[in-house]
Amino acid sequence: MGVPTVERDVGFARRVGISGVGTSAFGRFPDERIEALGWQAVAEALDDAGISPGDVDAAYVGSVFGAPGVANRVLAGVGLAGIPTFRIEAACASGTVAFHEACTAVGLSRYDCVVAVGVEQLSTQFAGPIVPEASDPEGRAGLALPALYALQANRYLHRFGHDPSLLAHVAVKNKANGSRNPRAHLGGAPPSFDEVLASRPIAGPLTLLQCCPMTDGAAAAVVSPFEASGPTRAVEVRASTFVSGVHWGAGSDEPWGVGAVRAAAERAYAMAGVGPAEVDVLEVHDAFTIGEVLTLEALGICEPGEGIHLAPSGHTAHGGRQPVNPSGGLLARGHPLGATGLAQTAELVWQLRGEAGERQVEGARLALLETMGGGAAGVDANACVVALLGGAS
Amino acid sequence: MGVPTVERDVGFARRVGISGVGTSAFGRFPDERIEALGWQAVAEALDDAGISPGDVDAAYVGSVFGAPGVANRVLAGVGLAGIPTFRIEAACASGTVAFHEACTAVGLSRYDCVVAVGVEQLSTQFAGPIVPEASDPEGRAGLALPALYALQANRYLHRFGHDPSLLAHVAVKNKANGSRNPRAHLGGAPPSFDEVLASRPIAGPLTLLQCCPMTDGAAAAVVSPFEASGPTRAVEVRASTFVSGVHWGAGSDEPWGVGAVRAAAERAYAMAGVGPAEVDVLEVHDAFTIGEVLTLEALGICEPGEGIHLAPSGHTAHGGRQPVNPSGGLLARGHPLGATGLAQTAELVWQLRGEAGERQVEGARLALLETMGGGAAGVDANACVVALLGGAS
Repeated sequence: MGVPTVERDVGFARRVGISGVGTSAFGRFPDERIEALGWQAVAEALDDAGISPGDVDAAYVGSVFGAPGVANRVLAGVGLAGIPTFRIEAACASGTVAFHEACTAVGLSRYDCVVAVGVEQLSTQFAGPIVPEASDPEGRAGLALPALYALQANRYLHRFGHDPSLLAHVAVKNKANGSRNPRAHLGGAPPSFDEVLASRPIAGPLTLLQCCPMTDGAAAAVVSPFEASGPTRAVEVRASTFVSGVHWGAGSDEPWGVGAVRAAAERAYAMAGVGPAEVDVLEVHDAFTIGEVLTLEALGICEPGEGIHLAPSGHTAHGGRQPVNPSGGLLARGHPLGATGLAQTAELVWQLRGEAGERQVEGARLALLETMGGGAAGVDANACVVALLGGAS
Repeated sequence: MGVPTVERDVGFARRVGISGVGTSAFGRFPDERIEALGWQAVAEALDDAGISPGDVDAAYVGSVFGAPGVANRVLAGVGLAGIPTFRIEAACASGTVAFHEACTAVGLSRYDCVVAVGVEQLSTQFAGPIVPEASDPEGRAGLALPALYALQANRYLHRFGHDPSLLAHVAVKNKANGSRNPRAHLGGAPPSFDEVLASRPIAGPLTLLQCCPMTDGAAAAVVSPFEASGPTRAVEVRASTFVSGVHWGAGSDEPWGVGAVRAAAERAYAMAGVGPAEVDVLEVHDAFTIGEVLTLEALGICEPGEGIHLAPSGHTAHGGRQPVNPSGGLLARGHPLGATGLAQTAELVWQLRGEAGERQVEGARLALLETMGGGAAGVDANACVVALLGGAS
């Protein structure tokens, strides 16, 4: 990138914790009301935190395509009314920005108990054929997101001379993880390496099974001061950082979006006083296989050019040294845009509490959450959030 | 209302000021890009504040119908990239909530220089016939917003035994104000009282000229610590409060939305240490004539039942004791949803700086900003912001 990403976020003035999480199932639910998906997630999170609606001071709601008013419809249905409520849109990171805002509001003592929610219903939003939005100049030029990620993949593969088929290992791993997740959208028998490569071409080198599905769902977290949450069950938010991308164009030295992830991660590690080698489990933005590869490099999990080997080597697999996307990730749990970041959060909280069942990462103490949203709006990413959870007594 | 609105906002820990404002023109610009409207507003605000894009720490962008990514598209085009950017949707109060968040971020020392922007393009969003949204249960039942406000008006008129024609005076006043505003959407020769009443019926008792137009436009403000802004030109934000409504139903003692306005106003007066009689000029939410009447009562400008007399008596007119909506308000300047709150902010800043030209309210020192958004989502208002500006040395 030509210009360093500026990060001026203030951090937390007091310790912040996640005292409860909840999700809906993920899948295609065109006959469900989007509000009902949200109600399931919020009710489960409030119950998990052991609080009632009257305990909540404010709510942040992430949704990309939810109709105006969706935030209040979701909240009012579970008894959350009369409090400040903020509906956030930050592309694929909408839910994660809602989570970041909740953490920051608690960390700066603005509020003491905040609910962060993400809701999305893509099955009704895109019920017909998908056409590039009239308002989106990139879409009109053919640069829909699969094409953007394909360009990113080709740039990466060319730069390091990698075999394109290696990308398929990310899909094999994450779909195997998803088969252990009863709430995953694509949770059935996982495909083989050959099946991933043989699936329908979408935008070369990406095949259909290397692309996330269009998913409906909701997820929520309750954020409050860490001490007050009870340290035996609550999970500390050691850091949460948010950047929007810098200007980016074809002359950039790096693929689209990588700089924003790196900037957010560097700041998050500094805030928490840890390094990437200390992370035990990660949920990262794998909307397309190449996304996980580039993200892990930007997060410092490996050197540039090495990310493509992390899945085939087993490093990021269930039982590996640093499991990535144990939930199945966006590729298998699904990608209900505004809900994704909070679904990632819920998975990591369950992992850190030892409640992830068949998906449990043994000994998980420090977890990393990353979501990157958008791009192609003249900047290399509309929004990227990196958070570090757990890892403290 | 059956349940008191809970307000737990923390207020400011340091003084907050508005150091610059800007707007586009307001009107129907279907051939313009929504981003270009935003660029005009932000560029004017940065110039007015005497700062460059590199001075800005974060941005809050209010928009209801802007496509995903609209925030980054607007910001990147004027050089604002690599900073945290938040896109807010809070119905008609989207821009005002963006302003409130900017003020709170500065007031809590989260950021030192924040841009709040509102953008909306309704001419392209509603290019065809307006049909109730499929996702909106109230709309499907026929309770579109004009109908909701008409019910509110009939309840009010019945309760106090007022002549329905008195409402037309609000439209006459605000359209006269708009005729003095070169950026107003409906800025031509103002209609007479009889012309307002004779215009097409929309939802009894509201006629066409008692309803705001569908407007495109953008507005922006630069928010920074008051001391640093230079007290001779900057305008202090004495208070900014935000509530979402409580549960509301047909059994409520009051019309829809009033309780949220009152709760936000009471908190704002307490924060600023002033009362309603001290306010010199107001910009309030007059999407329909009845809205201004009920809002002024909820703000304590008069007793319940007396609001309908404020326009005909001249109290709220240009040259009156407490001029309301000198910009023309939503009825004449127009109502570009996400931009409205920041257009109101810009008008009040110009008034307090003595730069409002023909519209100038003589001796304006303390100004009140109010926007109310949504409702009918199970709560009496999705969002209401009340802010008090100026009035301090």
